[in-house]
Amino acid sequence: MSSLYNTLKIAVLPGDGIGREVMPACLELIDAAVSQAGAPPLVFETHQAGAQHYAETGEALPAAALEGCRTSDAILFGAMGWPDIRFPDGTEIIPQLDLRMEFGLFAGVRPIRWFPGLPKVLSDPRAEGIDFVLVREQTEGLFYARGRGEVLNDQEAYDTMQITRAGTERVTEFAFQLAAQRKRRGKAGTVTCVDKANVFSSMAFFRKVFDEIAAKHPELQKDYAYVDALALNMVKKPWTLDVLVTENMFGDILSDLAAGLIGGMGMAPSADIGDTHGLFQPAHGTAPDIAGKGVANPGAMFLSGAMMLDWLAVKHGDQRLADAAGLIEAAVEHTLSTKIAVPMEYGGSANCAEMTRSVIGALGAVR
Amino acid sequence: MSSLYNTLKIAVLPGDGIGREVMPACLELIDAAVSQAGAPPLVFETHQAGAQHYAETGEALPAAALEGCRTSDAILFGAMGWPDIRFPDGTEIIPQLDLRMEFGLFAGVRPIRWFPGLPKVLSDPRAEGIDFVLVREQTEGLFYARGRGEVLNDQEAYDTMQITRAGTERVTEFAFQLAAQRKRRGKAGTVTCVDKANVFSSMAFFRKVFDEIAAKHPELQKDYAYVDALALNMVKKPWTLDVLVTENMFGDILSDLAAGLIGGMGMAPSADIGDTHGLFQPAHGTAPDIAGKGVANPGAMFLSGAMMLDWLAVKHGDQRLADAAGLIEAAVEHTLSTKIAVPMEYGGSANCAEMTRSVIGALGAVR
Ligand SMILES: CC(C)[C@H](C(=O)O)[C@@H](O)C(=O)O
Ligand SMILES: CC(C)[C@H](C(=O)O)[C@@H](O)C(=O)O
Repeated sequence: MSSLYNTLKIAVLPGDGIGREVMPACLELIDAAVSQAGAPPLVFETHQAGAQHYAETGEALPAAALEGCRTSDAILFGAMGWPDIRFPDGTEIIPQLDLRMEFGLFAGVRPIRWFPGLPKVLSDPRAEGIDFVLVREQTEGLFYARGRGEVLNDQEAYDTMQITRAGTERVTEFAFQLAAQRKRRGKAGTVTCVDKANVFSSMAFFRKVFDEIAAKHPELQKDYAYVDALALNMVKKPWTLDVLVTENMFGDILSDLAAGLIGGMGMAPSADIGDTHGLFQPAHGTAPDIAGKGVANPGAMFLSGAMMLDWLAVKHGDQRLADAAGLIEAAVEHTLSTKIAVPMEYGGSANCAEMTRSVIGALGAVR
Repeated sequence: MSSLYNTLKIAVLPGDGIGREVMPACLELIDAAVSQAGAPPLVFETHQAGAQHYAETGEALPAAALEGCRTSDAILFGAMGWPDIRFPDGTEIIPQLDLRMEFGLFAGVRPIRWFPGLPKVLSDPRAEGIDFVLVREQTEGLFYARGRGEVLNDQEAYDTMQITRAGTERVTEFAFQLAAQRKRRGKAGTVTCVDKANVFSSMAFFRKVFDEIAAKHPELQKDYAYVDALALNMVKKPWTLDVLVTENMFGDILSDLAAGLIGGMGMAPSADIGDTHGLFQPAHGTAPDIAGKGVANPGAMFLSGAMMLDWLAVKHGDQRLADAAGLIEAAVEHTLSTKIAVPMEYGGSANCAEMTRSVIGALGAVR
């Protein structure tokens, strides 16, 4: 297939802490996978941003970084934030929230899949079949309140949750399109609306709009769950889940819970997708406790890179990028399942460099 | 010890579905335990309320039931709600939320403890040490929005979360007093404030008030967790948790998740405590799928009854009621650990009547 596009430019934001360690590892892996898949190399443009950058310059997300993201074909994001580096009002430095708003990255895509080599957190053997995707709405919901909340007279505080028809339609439509791919082994293509429609009128509205979108996809299944019951079922029978769609705050909680089912954030990638831009980032944070030691597990960053390649492949109609994504996923799985290298967080001894060498080495084995 | 009080009157609200099955079982058990502990019998006054009552009479929580609760020494609650029985506006019939508001039942106490005979949900052997209590604020938070939310022009909907100083002070103080009892094996007496203070000003306010209360308890430990990270740690290392205090909606989600760690709602009791009243209720719902078959596991109802006796014991300074509570807990544990009777939901064959007979029988064995 010939190249249908000019060279793809990736805005790279390593950020803080272990973001700065797993990012170079990921770029190296992407280079190798893209080359083995026969695609032209991606061009990486690295930008400084984050809490440490704020401490040094007074800017967390400089205009140049933002502009670099805007004009890029995709954004690859490490992790940002640092203890004790805060804005003057005491809130945290969280450029990823600003980027979600700035580029309308409405769909937070959090795939959770168990594969051999990952910790068996749940004792039920069916947990080996965990394979679902959480789609978190990311531009409204309770996060609408960020920067808008009020504390009155040191006596009472209010934050308002917003659910719009447009916001719910687009994220729900996105979830149905994901389900239509029927990528998950043996699942029927079911989208579950996770809400609290029994108590809140905004959530009843969310469910109503979900229903309208569902009606446009008669070939797929729809289902409902209250968020509390869903949290229970994520522990009791997560292997029954396929695609979930939910409000911003609920999605924040549930996606961390979900990552716990596969041993934590070490293998939990994520994508923040909008109409024009896509940002790809491991679900973990900057891990100040282990930062600077070179021991971070780059697995989630690697899988986020693969999600980016997959997204670019669809966007630009280039199968070679999908192949590169597949190579990365297969190489990560191969490395873990054969235990060529076991990350420290799973009781092994492989540091970030060793994990990277092993996964790059495995690219050849899985072709 | 002589009786320091008149006969205690318990308002009994069996409600709907399996609430009507596990409640009589629980009253029988309480009678037996109270008698074996040498305390005077409690007087039970049963009131009709719930979804089915609404369907029959147009009232979900009749004035007589409310008055019965008001003049009682404690409220024992089964479960309420039924599919397809809804208020005209489509919302669910949820008298337990009305009762929380009516009596200011601000502290939702959800103890989660593993003991032999319960399912081993997590594969890590340390999960046998799961023993924590979640304290959920129950009169404000996001639930402040119930009945107040707006849907504008079928385009956008808003619900507002309220955090007050008074509401946060009382629930946090309650949590520290719980921690001061140091009941949990080998834990240091730590209260963890679970919030999202990094993003929401109401949550930063919650944490600030928490800190003020914590300062009054220098002999105890305090800790903080963002709600998403806490959801992850509940799966990764729940054995490290002691007392958690959190906002209403977060507590709703986390308490269901927590129950999942011990196999579900079957053994998850709860107490809703206010300044003057206390309501005790299993964490499970009405279970329409199994209601009417006599197969419900009454375990959570039994443990809720024990929580009630414990609370009455402190309130009235009567050790015999604490003894009765201890007998019930020990008899439930004895029944499960010796597998004299195994509830159907844990793969056994004991129905509600058999579980009840076994636990009552075990009262003698554990004295
Ligand atoms: C850093 C934090 C504000 C962020 C969020 O709450 O969205 C994170 O938890 C996430 O899940 O991406
Ligand atoms: C029935 C429902 C409204 C209720 C709640 O959300 O509080 C329940 O989930 C609970 O936890 O008591």
